[in-house]
Amino acid sequence: MIRVTVWNEYRHEKVNERVAQVYPNGIHNAIADFLKKDDRFKVRTATLDEPENGLSDQVLDETDVLVWWGHKAHEEVLDSVAAKVQSRVQEGMGFIVLHSSHMSKPFRLLMGTTCTLKWRKAGEKERLWNISPTHPITKGIGDYFELEHTEMYGEYFDIPKPDDNIFISWFSGGEVFRSGCVWTRGNGRIFYFKPGHETFPIYYDQTIQKIICNAVEWCAPVMYRKLDCVNVSPIEPIEIIEC
Amino acid sequence: MIRVTVWNEYRHEKVNERVAQVYPNGIHNAIADFLKKDDRFKVRTATLDEPENGLSDQVLDETDVLVWWGHKAHEEVLDSVAAKVQSRVQEGMGFIVLHSSHMSKPFRLLMGTTCTLKWRKAGEKERLWNISPTHPITKGIGDYFELEHTEMYGEYFDIPKPDDNIFISWFSGGEVFRSGCVWTRGNGRIFYFKPGHETFPIYYDQTIQKIICNAVEWCAPVMYRKLDCVNVSPIEPIEIIEC
Amino acid sequence: MIRVTVWNEYRHEKVNERVAQVYPNGIHNAIADFLKKDDRFKVRTATLDEPENGLSDQVLDETDVLVWWGHKAHEEVLDSVAAKVQSRVQEGMGFIVLHSSHMSKPFRLLMGTTCTLKWRKAGEKERLWNISPTHPITKGIGDYFELEHTEMYGEYFDIPKPDDNIFISWFSGGEVFRSGCVWTRGNGRIFYFKPGHETFPIYYDQTIQKIICNAVEWCAPVMYRKLDCVNVSPIEPIEIIEC
Amino acid sequence: MIRVTVWNEYRHEKVNERVAQVYPNGIHNAIADFLKKDDRFKVRTATLDEPENGLSDQVLDETDVLVWWGHKAHEEVLDSVAAKVQSRVQEGMGFIVLHSSHMSKPFRLLMGTTCTLKWRKAGEKERLWNISPTHPITKGIGDYFELEHTEMYGEYFDIPKPDDNIFISWFSGGEVFRSGCVWTRGNGRIFYFKPGHETFPIYYDQTIQKIICNAVEWCAPVMYRKLDCVNVSPIEPIEIIEC
Repeated sequence: MIRVTVWNEYRHEKVNERVAQVYPNGIHNAIADFLKKDDRFKVRTATLDEPENGLSDQVLDETDVLVWWGHKAHEEVLDSVAAKVQSRVQEGMGFIVLHSSHMSKPFRLLMGTTCTLKWRKAGEKERLWNISPTHPITKGIGDYFELEHTEMYGEYFDIPKPDDNIFISWFSGGEVFRSGCVWTRGNGRIFYFKPGHETFPIYYDQTIQKIICNAVEWCAPVMYRKLDCVNVSPIEPIEIIEC
Repeated sequence: MIRVTVWNEYRHEKVNERVAQVYPNGIHNAIADFLKKDDRFKVRTATLDEPENGLSDQVLDETDVLVWWGHKAHEEVLDSVAAKVQSRVQEGMGFIVLHSSHMSKPFRLLMGTTCTLKWRKAGEKERLWNISPTHPITKGIGDYFELEHTEMYGEYFDIPKPDDNIFISWFSGGEVFRSGCVWTRGNGRIFYFKPGHETFPIYYDQTIQKIICNAVEWCAPVMYRKLDCVNVSPIEPIEIIEC
Repeated sequence: MIRVTVWNEYRHEKVNERVAQVYPNGIHNAIADFLKKDDRFKVRTATLDEPENGLSDQVLDETDVLVWWGHKAHEEVLDSVAAKVQSRVQEGMGFIVLHSSHMSKPFRLLMGTTCTLKWRKAGEKERLWNISPTHPITKGIGDYFELEHTEMYGEYFDIPKPDDNIFISWFSGGEVFRSGCVWTRGNGRIFYFKPGHETFPIYYDQTIQKIICNAVEWCAPVMYRKLDCVNVSPIEPIEIIEC
Repeated sequence: MIRVTVWNEYRHEKVNERVAQVYPNGIHNAIADFLKKDDRFKVRTATLDEPENGLSDQVLDETDVLVWWGHKAHEEVLDSVAAKVQSRVQEGMGFIVLHSSHMSKPFRLLMGTTCTLKWRKAGEKERLWNISPTHPITKGIGDYFELEHTEMYGEYFDIPKPDDNIFISWFSGGEVFRSGCVWTRGNGRIFYFKPGHETFPIYYDQTIQKIICNAVEWCAPVMYRKLDCVNVSPIEPIEIIEC
């Protein structure tokens, strides 16, 4: 069983009626709900306003893949928590970064770039083209799929060159976007996936759900290993050195 | 003219007699000296114990490529200075990271990984194989070159997949190492180059000097551009959206 | 001076009146004309129906960068000529592959994939987004540029993962396409660039011309080197082997 | 069950007594033997001197992963068979390319480069460093492993930039080599693995066997899909085009 923790800022839902209508139990629970139907996964949630932002050492010890949703309160995430998430990914934890979480602290720490992009909220159509048809994340997804009403995210998207570019989005307003990208950092696998919004009901879409399920499986750690310690002391030579 | 700033921690040279013998004016001046002989470059130096670690906004405004040497005082670099170096690279400044600077704050901020590795100081032989023979950084370098006495750095080196792996080192003690690697972060180009040490006189080696000169030219910015601002406000659609 | 040879199938222009109106002297001469205005380049042309398809050893000996246009007669290119172009690229010659030349023999030999794609000729709008703003090929090109009437090329484009994806195209009909991509094969640099057509006057567009000029400079060989010979005989060990 | 076909040139074993002593039933059977012990796999063999080089359409129809060993008779493989192997890989078949098969026809067709390298047969020690510790191919393999007596393969190895560099070898004679590399071509995954030889008993080594088993599982096709046909006819627009 892959142990998944779905993290949500969980602020919009409390203050904005329209958001609350779309996600009455919070985006985290909408995501957790479809993950729970998949018997490969054991799912819990965590939110910003819990102690330690809901991500104590114990929770992280029991997390194989962390799904992250943030939007308007990125700066309120504790620096210590962001650093801990970064370390956990380096040690092997999978990390799925949704939509506006491109500006979240842990994602930016892992990327090293500004992660900025262009955006527009006009409710336009988005068509996601699958340009990695044999990647495990696109299993069961065809050549493309559509979202009728979305927020536009456009290039230039300031990210390091992805290990694989999985999806490219077309928007009716005229832009394109690398809307699905993967990287490895240390032992950990990272998937950034653009779709999602606090008022468009994207996470109820079955194709989106299938992709996130695929991604959880793909991001699950092959192994855990602390990398910080190897630097501490010198190692003995394997061969005899003559000099 | 490419404006180069050579930054040095400049601590060893003051406290360790052997280091002072090898680099009497500091490693920064040894590097600046050979760069100054190249009329493509205008060279200055900066050190840790100067105000703002020698890297005021004015100095950075006048820097196209920053060469970094740090070893025992990484943690003393101001967080604000490390963050500023990261931003400047994102905006276009070239960044050459030498030897033990793999653990420096700005390099780790740009990589997002632990940047740890294995090491041993036994004065063994290192042979650097050129596996990117057409990369501008290896112009004039043959199939390989040797350093008689070096500190060993070995794999696993915890870095993001490099855009190009330029050199792979062979060590007589039995290890290998990706000893020259490049990445792009935002508009800026980064070159990590393993050779160098505070007591082995590596920076007097003519092949090493040629590679660093090549790298300065290659890292020089194509353009400068702030990337932080594009995220602030939404953009207008190019096409008419019907929905 | 970079020596450029512009190769053209040169068939459409002779049999189709509309093509002849757009490119009265052939596409090769339209491309050669703007390249000749750039004093970095020395330009010649070659066409399919010349002896050895216009690409004798002497012509290739005097070619630093080969620009290729083919469409309806890919199969008539001699296998020996295609193999020679592949070898020359491996040894260092730059290779710029335009539009329908994605199905040309030498490009397919260098890629190893089918190089197939989706297409439609509806004269729709194409907008090319610059996703590598610091790559030398995009020097002087802004965030995007447009072509009012083009043939659509769409994903999935069956190519090896590019070393860099330079442009992504948006089409009004709903597709996206990786319309500018670079690879290295041996010592040689390759740029595939989608724009171009036999009846749309794409090669008179100034942005297109600037990009092709940039690409010629970028593809110019750093060095020439035969790679075939190193495999012939064993090499002596550098270190003493004890076994 | 993954259906594996192990292909061998099978010539050395018939004419060279030392080879016959090490691999009395041929290298193909030595490899097939350890694969057969793994109940994930259904294994068959094929050899050069069988009709159609042992690779009829029916055999290929029943092959998910093809393991290839060739050395002295690369040129005797039928061009039609090499082309068929290339097509099958493009459609999804996995392809594991062992040792001297770097010069085999199908591998070179898929790479597009010369695939040349330096070599020496001195029976020296090789140490393979695992630089992709979380790749499925290195599951259960530690930081490094050793082969006491091997043929040396050294850089420059003329291959396209690998999607992942899995192993780097150290040789006691002084060279390094990218001894494990993966690429995707179309739907198919390719693993080049350097170890192996006709007189050194490399394929009896348990670490080598584990890596090849891991690689068979990793290379197994996610899906099959012909890519040649999509290019034949134009496609209809998804969006309404106004022009």
